[in-house]
Amino acid sequence: MNKEYPSSALERAVGEFAKLPGIGRKTALRLVLHMLSRPDEEVGTFGKVFSTLKQDIHYCKVCHNISDTDVCDICANPKRDGKLLCVVENVQDVLAIESTMQYNGLYHVLGGIISPMDGIGPQDLQIASLVERVQEGGIDEVILALSPTMEGDTTNFFISRKLQPMGVKLSVIARGVAVGNNLEYADEVSLGRSIVDRIPFQ
Amino acid sequence: MNKEYPSSALERAVGEFAKLPGIGRKTALRLVLHMLSRPDEEVGTFGKVFSTLKQDIHYCKVCHNISDTDVCDICANPKRDGKLLCVVENVQDVLAIESTMQYNGLYHVLGGIISPMDGIGPQDLQIASLVERVQEGGIDEVILALSPTMEGDTTNFFISRKLQPMGVKLSVIARGVAVGNNLEYADEVSLGRSIVDRIPFQ
Repeated sequence: MNKEYPSSALERAVGEFAKLPGIGRKTALRLVLHMLSRPDEEVGTFGKVFSTLKQDIHYCKVCHNISDTDVCDICANPKRDGKLLCVVENVQDVLAIESTMQYNGLYHVLGGIISPMDGIGPQDLQIASLVERVQEGGIDEVILALSPTMEGDTTNFFISRKLQPMGVKLSVIARGVAVGNNLEYADEVSLGRSIVDRIPFQ
Repeated sequence: MNKEYPSSALERAVGEFAKLPGIGRKTALRLVLHMLSRPDEEVGTFGKVFSTLKQDIHYCKVCHNISDTDVCDICANPKRDGKLLCVVENVQDVLAIESTMQYNGLYHVLGGIISPMDGIGPQDLQIASLVERVQEGGIDEVILALSPTMEGDTTNFFISRKLQPMGVKLSVIARGVAVGNNLEYADEVSLGRSIVDRIPFQ
Protein backbone atom coordinates (compact mmCIF):
# COMPACT_ATOMS: atom_id res chain seq x y z
CA MET A 1 0.00 0.00 0.00
CA ASN A 2 1.51 3.33 -1.00
CA LYS A 3 -1.50 5.31 0.20
CA GLU A 4 -1.78 6.16 3.90
CA TYR A 5 -5.41 5.20 4.51
CA PRO A 6 -7.44 2.25 3.22
CA SER A 7 -10.17 4.45 1.68
CA SER A 8 -10.21 7.58 -0.48
CA ALA A 9 -13.32 8.95 1.31
CA LEU A 10 -11.44 8.61 4.60
CA GLU A 11 -8.34 10.18 3.04
CA ARG A 12 -10.43 13.13 1.80
CA ALA A 13 -12.15 13.74 5.17
CA VAL A 14 -8.86 13.51 7.09
CA GLY A 15 -7.28 15.91 4.58
CA GLU A 16 -10.04 18.47 5.13
CA PHE A 17 -9.62 18.44 8.91
CA ALA A 18 -5.83 18.51 8.64
CA LYS A 19 -6.06 21.80 6.68
CA LEU A 20 -7.25 23.52 9.85
CA PRO A 21 -4.65 25.24 12.02
CA GLY A 22 -3.35 23.14 14.92
CA ILE A 23 -4.89 19.89 13.64
CA GLY A 24 -2.43 17.27 12.44
CA ARG A 25 -3.25 14.12 10.50
CA LYS A 26 -3.43 11.92 13.60
CA THR A 27 -5.95 14.21 15.30
CA ALA A 28 -7.83 14.55 11.99
CA LEU A 29 -8.15 10.75 11.73
CA ARG A 30 -9.38 10.58 15.32
CA LEU A 31 -12.03 13.25 14.57
CA VAL A 32 -13.22 11.53 11.39
CA LEU A 33 -13.50 8.14 13.15
CA HIS A 34 -15.45 9.84 15.94
CA MET A 35 -17.85 11.25 13.34
CA LEU A 36 -18.30 7.81 11.78
CA SER A 37 -19.50 6.57 15.17
CA ARG A 38 -22.20 9.28 15.31
CA PRO A 39 -25.70 9.14 13.74
CA ASP A 40 -25.96 9.99 10.00
CA GLU A 41 -28.15 12.99 10.77
CA GLU A 42 -25.63 14.58 13.14
CA VAL A 43 -22.78 14.24 10.63
CA GLY A 44 -25.01 15.56 7.83
CA THR A 45 -25.84 18.64 9.90
CA PHE A 46 -22.16 19.23 10.56
CA GLY A 47 -21.50 19.18 6.83
CA LYS A 48 -24.46 21.43 5.97
CA VAL A 49 -23.48 24.10 8.52
CA PHE A 50 -20.06 24.46 6.91
CA SER A 51 -21.31 24.14 3.30
CA THR A 52 -23.12 27.45 3.71
CA LEU A 53 -20.95 29.02 6.43
CA LYS A 54 -19.52 31.82 4.32
CA GLN A 55 -22.98 32.72 2.99
CA ASP A 56 -24.59 32.61 6.45
CA ILE A 57 -22.11 34.89 8.19
CA HIS A 58 -22.81 38.62 7.89
CA TYR A 59 -20.76 41.56 9.06
CA CYS A 60 -21.90 44.76 10.78
CA LYS A 61 -21.65 47.53 8.19
CA VAL A 62 -20.47 49.98 10.85
CA CYS A 63 -17.82 48.13 12.90
CA HIS A 64 -17.32 45.06 10.62
CA ASN A 65 -17.75 42.64 13.51
CA ILE A 66 -19.62 39.40 12.74
CA SER A 67 -23.34 40.05 13.20
CA ASP A 68 -26.79 38.66 12.39
CA THR A 69 -28.10 42.09 11.53
CA ASP A 70 -26.95 44.93 9.25
CA VAL A 71 -25.85 46.90 12.31
CA CYS A 72 -24.59 44.79 15.23
CA ASP A 73 -26.00 44.81 18.77
CA ILE A 74 -23.09 46.85 20.14
CA CYS A 75 -23.24 49.56 17.45
CA ALA A 76 -27.03 49.73 17.77
CA ASN A 77 -26.98 50.02 21.58
CA PRO A 78 -27.82 53.64 22.58
CA LYS A 79 -26.32 53.07 26.05
CA ARG A 80 -22.79 52.65 24.62
CA ASP A 81 -20.46 55.64 24.43
CA GLY A 82 -20.30 56.58 20.74
CA LYS A 83 -17.44 59.04 21.34
CA LEU A 84 -15.04 56.23 22.19
CA LEU A 85 -13.79 53.85 19.48
CA CYS A 86 -11.65 50.77 20.15
CA VAL A 87 -9.70 49.33 17.19
CA VAL A 88 -9.20 45.55 17.41
CA GLU A 89 -7.90 42.82 15.12
CA ASN A 90 -10.83 40.39 15.17
CA VAL A 91 -14.01 39.04 16.74
CA GLN A 92 -12.14 37.19 19.50
CA ASP A 93 -10.66 40.49 20.71
CA VAL A 94 -14.13 42.07 20.89
CA LEU A 95 -15.32 39.09 22.97
CA ALA A 96 -12.22 39.30 25.21
CA ILE A 97 -12.65 43.05 25.87
CA GLU A 98 -16.42 42.70 26.38
CA SER A 99 -15.80 40.00 28.99
CA THR A 100 -13.66 42.42 31.05
CA MET A 101 -16.79 44.62 31.58
CA GLN A 102 -14.39 47.62 31.60
CA TYR A 103 -15.29 49.14 28.25
CA ASN A 104 -18.51 50.83 27.18
CA GLY A 105 -17.54 52.42 23.86
CA LEU A 106 -17.81 51.12 20.31
CA TYR A 107 -15.46 48.90 18.27
CA HIS A 108 -13.85 48.84 14.87
CA VAL A 109 -12.78 45.36 13.72
CA LEU A 110 -9.87 45.48 11.26
CA GLY A 111 -10.27 41.83 10.24
CA GLY A 112 -6.53 41.23 10.61
CA ILE A 113 -3.25 42.99 11.14
CA ILE A 114 -0.60 44.32 8.76
CA SER A 115 1.75 41.41 8.11
CA PRO A 116 4.01 41.63 5.06
CA MET A 117 5.21 38.06 5.74
CA ASP A 118 1.65 36.77 5.17
CA GLY A 119 1.00 39.21 2.33
CA ILE A 120 -1.52 41.23 4.36
CA GLY A 121 -1.31 44.96 3.63
CA PRO A 122 -3.41 47.93 4.81
CA GLN A 123 -5.73 47.57 1.78
CA ASP A 124 -6.77 44.08 3.01
CA LEU A 125 -7.98 45.49 6.32
CA GLN A 126 -10.87 47.77 7.37
CA ILE A 127 -8.56 50.79 7.70
CA ALA A 128 -10.13 53.01 4.99
CA SER A 129 -13.53 52.54 6.66
CA LEU A 130 -11.96 53.44 10.03
CA VAL A 131 -10.58 56.69 8.59
CA GLU A 132 -14.03 57.42 7.11
CA ARG A 133 -15.73 56.78 10.45
CA VAL A 134 -13.39 59.21 12.23
CA GLN A 135 -13.78 61.75 9.40
CA GLU A 136 -17.57 61.71 9.82
CA GLY A 137 -16.97 63.17 13.30
CA GLY A 138 -18.48 62.48 16.72
CA ILE A 139 -15.51 60.39 17.87
CA ASP A 140 -13.31 61.92 20.60
CA GLU A 141 -10.82 59.11 21.20
CA VAL A 142 -9.55 56.11 19.28
CA ILE A 143 -8.02 53.34 21.43
CA LEU A 144 -5.61 51.09 19.53
CA ALA A 145 -6.04 47.65 21.13
CA LEU A 146 -3.87 45.46 18.89
CA SER A 147 -1.55 42.68 20.08
CA PRO A 148 1.79 43.93 21.47
CA THR A 149 3.75 42.35 18.61
CA MET A 150 5.81 43.63 15.70
CA GLU A 151 2.76 43.40 13.42
CA GLY A 152 0.55 45.13 15.98
CA ASP A 153 3.05 47.98 16.33
CA THR A 154 3.31 48.35 12.55
CA THR A 155 -0.47 48.53 12.24
CA ASN A 156 -0.70 50.99 15.14
CA PHE A 157 1.89 53.21 13.43
CA PHE A 158 0.11 53.06 10.06
CA ILE A 159 -3.27 53.93 11.59
CA SER A 160 -1.84 56.71 13.76
CA ARG A 161 -0.30 58.33 10.66
CA LYS A 162 -3.76 58.39 9.05
CA LEU A 163 -5.70 59.60 12.09
CA GLN A 164 -3.32 62.08 13.73
CA PRO A 165 -3.97 64.86 11.14
CA MET A 166 -7.70 64.70 12.03
CA GLY A 167 -7.09 65.87 15.58
CA VAL A 168 -8.69 62.84 17.24
CA LYS A 169 -7.18 61.70 20.55
CA LEU A 170 -5.19 58.45 20.06
CA SER A 171 -4.25 56.00 22.79
CA VAL A 172 -2.90 52.45 23.05
CA ILE A 173 -3.70 49.84 25.68
CA ALA A 174 -1.20 49.70 28.56
CA ARG A 175 1.66 47.22 28.30
CA GLY A 176 3.38 45.97 31.42
CA VAL A 177 3.48 43.06 33.84
CA ALA A 178 0.41 40.84 33.90
CA VAL A 179 -1.81 41.20 36.97
CA GLY A 180 -1.27 38.34 39.44
CA ASN A 181 2.11 37.35 37.98
CA ASN A 182 5.28 37.22 40.05
CA LEU A 183 7.72 39.93 38.90
CA GLU A 184 10.52 37.40 38.55
CA TYR A 185 8.56 35.50 35.91
CA ALA A 186 7.75 38.58 33.80
CA ASP A 187 9.74 38.84 30.55
CA GLU A 188 12.34 41.61 30.41
CA VAL A 189 10.63 43.64 27.69
CA SER A 190 7.28 43.80 29.52
CA LEU A 191 9.01 44.56 32.82
CA GLY A 192 11.05 47.30 31.11
CA ARG A 193 7.90 48.80 29.59
CA SER A 194 6.16 48.71 32.96
CA ILE A 195 8.94 50.91 34.44
CA VAL A 196 9.13 53.34 31.51
CA ASP A 197 5.32 53.67 31.36
CA ARG A 198 4.85 53.91 35.16
CA ILE A 199 1.76 55.81 36.35
CA PRO A 200 1.11 57.92 39.50
CA PHE A 201 0.32 55.76 42.54
CA GLN A 202 -3.30 56.17 43.61
CA MET B 1 -26.06 40.43 25.57
CA ASN B 2 -26.97 37.09 27.08
CA LYS B 3 -25.69 35.12 24.09
CA GLU B 4 -21.99 34.32 23.83
CA TYR B 5 -21.37 35.26 20.19
CA PRO B 6 -22.67 38.18 18.12
CA SER B 7 -24.16 35.96 15.40
CA SER B 8 -26.30 32.82 15.37
CA ALA B 9 -24.50 31.45 12.30
CA LEU B 10 -21.21 31.80 14.17
CA GLU B 11 -22.79 30.24 17.27
CA ARG B 12 -23.99 27.29 15.19
CA ALA B 13 -20.62 26.68 13.50
CA VAL B 14 -18.72 26.94 16.80
CA GLY B 15 -21.21 24.53 18.38
CA GLU B 16 -20.63 21.96 15.62
CA PHE B 17 -16.86 22.00 16.07
CA ALA B 18 -17.14 21.95 19.85
CA LYS B 19 -19.10 18.67 19.65
CA LEU B 20 -15.90 16.94 18.48
CA PRO B 21 -13.73 15.25 21.11
CA GLY B 22 -10.86 17.37 22.41
CA ILE B 23 -12.15 20.60 20.84
CA GLY B 24 -13.37 23.24 23.28
CA ARG B 25 -15.35 26.38 22.45
CA LYS B 26 -12.24 28.59 22.25
CA THR B 27 -10.52 26.30 19.77
CA ALA B 28 -13.81 25.92 17.87
CA LEU B 29 -14.10 29.72 17.52
CA ARG B 30 -10.50 29.92 16.29
CA LEU B 31 -11.20 27.22 13.68
CA VAL B 32 -14.40 28.91 12.44
CA LEU B 33 -12.67 32.31 12.15
CA HIS B 34 -9.85 30.63 10.24
CA MET B 35 -12.41 29.18 7.83
CA LEU B 36 -14.00 32.60 7.35
CA SER B 37 -10.62 33.86 6.16
CA ARG B 38 -10.44 31.13 3.48
CA PRO B 39 -11.99 31.23 -0.02
CA ASP B 40 -15.73 30.38 -0.31
CA GLU B 41 -14.92 27.36 -2.45
CA GLU B 42 -12.56 25.80 0.08
CA VAL B 43 -15.09 26.14 2.92
CA GLY B 44 -17.87 24.81 0.66
CA THR B 45 -15.77 21.72 -0.14
CA PHE B 46 -15.12 21.15 3.56
CA GLY B 47 -18.86 21.19 4.20
CA LYS B 48 -19.69 18.92 1.26
CA VAL B 49 -17.14 16.28 2.26
CA PHE B 50 -18.76 15.93 5.69
CA SER B 51 -22.37 16.21 4.41
CA THR B 52 -21.91 12.89 2.62
CA LEU B 53 -19.20 11.35 4.82
CA LYS B 54 -21.30 8.55 6.27
CA GLN B 55 -22.62 7.62 2.80
CA ASP B 56 -19.13 7.75 1.22
CA ILE B 57 -17.42 5.48 3.72
CA HIS B 58 -17.68 1.77 3.04
CA TYR B 59 -16.49 -1.17 5.09
CA CYS B 60 -14.74 -4.35 3.96
CA LYS B 61 -17.32 -7.13 4.20
CA VAL B 62 -14.64 -9.58 5.38
CA CYS B 63 -12.61 -7.71 8.05
CA HIS B 64 -14.92 -4.67 8.56
CA ASN B 65 -12.04 -2.22 8.13
CA ILE B 66 -12.83 1.02 6.25
CA SER B 67 -12.36 0.37 2.54
CA ASP B 68 -13.17 1.75 -0.91
CA THR B 69 -13.99 -1.69 -2.23
CA ASP B 70 -16.24 -4.55 -1.09
CA VAL B 71 -13.16 -6.48 0.01
CA CYS B 72 -10.27 -4.35 1.29
CA ASP B 73 -6.74 -4.35 -0.10
CA ILE B 74 -5.36 -6.36 2.81
CA CYS B 75 -8.04 -9.10 2.65
CA ALA B 76 -7.69 -9.26 -1.16
CA ASN B 77 -3.88 -9.51 -1.08
CA PRO B 78 -2.86 -13.11 -1.92
CA LYS B 79 0.61 -12.54 -0.40
CA ARG B 80 -0.82 -12.13 3.10
CA ASP B 81 -1.02 -15.13 5.43
CA GLY B 82 -4.69 -16.10 5.56
CA LYS B 83 -4.08 -18.54 8.43
CA LEU B 84 -3.25 -15.73 10.85
CA LEU B 85 -6.00 -13.39 12.09
CA CYS B 86 -5.36 -10.32 14.23
CA VAL B 87 -8.35 -8.91 16.17
CA VAL B 88 -8.17 -5.12 16.68
CA GLU B 89 -10.46 -2.41 17.97
CA ASN B 90 -10.43 0.03 15.04
CA VAL B 91 -8.85 1.41 11.87
CA GLN B 92 -6.11 3.26 13.76
CA ASP B 93 -4.90 -0.02 15.25
CA VAL B 94 -4.68 -1.59 11.77
CA LEU B 95 -2.62 1.41 10.59
CA ALA B 96 -0.40 1.21 13.69
CA ILE B 97 0.29 -2.53 13.28
CA GLU B 98 0.81 -2.17 9.51
CA SER B 99 3.40 0.55 10.14
CA THR B 100 5.47 -1.85 12.28
CA MET B 101 6.01 -4.06 9.15
CA GLN B 102 6.07 -7.05 11.55
CA TYR B 103 2.73 -8.61 10.63
CA ASN B 104 1.70 -10.30 7.41
CA GLY B 105 -1.60 -11.92 8.36
CA LEU B 106 -5.18 -10.64 8.08
CA TYR B 107 -7.23 -8.46 10.43
CA HIS B 108 -10.65 -8.44 12.02
CA VAL B 109 -11.82 -4.97 13.08
CA LEU B 110 -14.30 -5.11 15.98
CA GLY B 111 -15.35 -1.48 15.60
CA GLY B 112 -15.00 -0.85 19.33
CA ILE B 113 -14.47 -2.63 22.60
CA ILE B 114 -16.86 -4.01 25.24
CA SER B 115 -17.54 -1.11 27.60
CA PRO B 116 -20.60 -1.36 29.86
CA MET B 117 -19.94 2.23 31.05
CA ASP B 118 -20.52 3.51 27.50
CA GLY B 119 -23.32 1.04 26.85
CA ILE B 120 -21.27 -0.94 24.32
CA GLY B 121 -21.97 -4.67 24.52
CA PRO B 122 -20.76 -7.64 22.41
CA GLN B 123 -23.75 -7.29 20.08
CA ASP B 124 -22.57 -3.78 19.05
CA LEU B 125 -19.23 -5.17 17.84
CA GLN B 126 -18.17 -7.42 14.98
CA ILE B 127 -17.81 -10.44 17.29
CA ALA B 128 -20.49 -12.65 15.70
CA SER B 129 -18.82 -12.19 12.31
CA LEU B 130 -15.44 -13.07 13.88
CA VAL B 131 -16.87 -16.32 15.25
CA GLU B 132 -18.32 -17.07 11.79
CA ARG B 133 -14.98 -16.40 10.12
CA VAL B 134 -13.21 -18.82 12.45
CA GLN B 135 -16.02 -21.38 12.06
CA GLU B 136 -15.58 -21.33 8.26
CA GLY B 137 -12.10 -22.77 8.85
CA GLY B 138 -8.67 -22.04 7.38
CA ILE B 139 -7.54 -19.94 10.35
CA ASP B 140 -4.83 -21.45 12.57
CA GLU B 141 -4.23 -18.64 15.05
CA VAL B 142 -6.20 -15.66 16.31
CA ILE B 143 -4.08 -12.87 17.87
CA LEU B 144 -6.00 -10.66 20.27
CA ALA B 145 -4.44 -7.21 19.88
CA LEU B 146 -6.71 -5.03 22.01
CA SER B 147 -5.56 -2.26 24.35
CA PRO B 148 -4.17 -3.51 27.68
CA THR B 149 -7.06 -1.96 29.65
CA MET B 150 -9.95 -3.29 31.69
CA GLU B 151 -12.22 -3.04 28.62
CA GLY B 152 -9.62 -4.76 26.44
CA ASP B 153 -9.26 -7.59 28.94
CA THR B 154 -13.05 -8.00 29.17
CA THR B 155 -13.33 -8.18 25.39
CA ASN B 156 -10.41 -10.63 25.17
CA PHE B 157 -12.13 -12.84 27.74
CA PHE B 158 -15.48 -12.71 25.94
CA ILE B 159 -13.92 -13.57 22.57
CA SER B 160 -11.76 -16.34 24.02
CA ARG B 161 -14.83 -17.99 25.54
CA LYS B 162 -16.44 -18.04 22.07
CA LEU B 163 -13.37 -19.23 20.14
CA GLN B 164 -11.72 -21.72 22.52
CA PRO B 165 -14.29 -24.51 21.86
CA MET B 166 -13.38 -24.30 18.14
CA GLY B 167 -9.84 -25.47 18.77
CA VAL B 168 -8.19 -22.43 17.16
CA LYS B 169 -4.88 -21.24 18.71
CA LEU B 170 -5.42 -18.03 20.69
CA SER B 171 -2.70 -15.54 21.63
CA VAL B 172 -2.50 -12.00 23.00
CA ILE B 173 0.11 -9.36 22.21
CA ALA B 174 2.99 -9.20 24.73
CA ARG B 175 2.68 -6.74 27.60
CA GLY B 176 5.79 -5.47 29.31
CA VAL B 177 8.16 -2.53 29.45
CA ALA B 178 8.20 -0.30 26.38
CA VAL B 179 11.29 -0.59 24.18
CA GLY B 180 13.72 2.29 24.78
CA ASN B 181 12.23 3.21 28.15
CA ASN B 182 14.28 3.30 31.34
CA LEU B 183 13.18 0.56 33.75
CA GLU B 184 12.80 3.04 36.59
CA TYR B 185 10.11 4.93 34.64
CA ALA B 186 8.05 1.84 33.78
CA ASP B 187 4.80 1.53 35.74
CA GLU B 188 4.70 -1.27 38.32
CA VAL B 189 2.00 -3.30 36.57
CA SER B 190 3.84 -3.39 33.22
CA LEU B 191 7.14 -4.14 34.95
CA GLY B 192 5.47 -6.91 36.96
CA ARG B 193 3.96 -8.39 33.78
CA SER B 194 7.34 -8.25 32.06
CA ILE B 195 8.84 -10.44 34.81
CA VAL B 196 5.96 -12.93 34.98
CA ASP B 197 5.79 -13.20 31.14
CA ARG B 198 9.59 -13.39 30.69
CA ILE B 199 10.82 -15.23 27.57
CA PRO B 200 14.02 -17.28 26.89
CA PHE B 201 17.04 -15.08 26.14
CA GLN B 202 18.10 -15.44 22.52
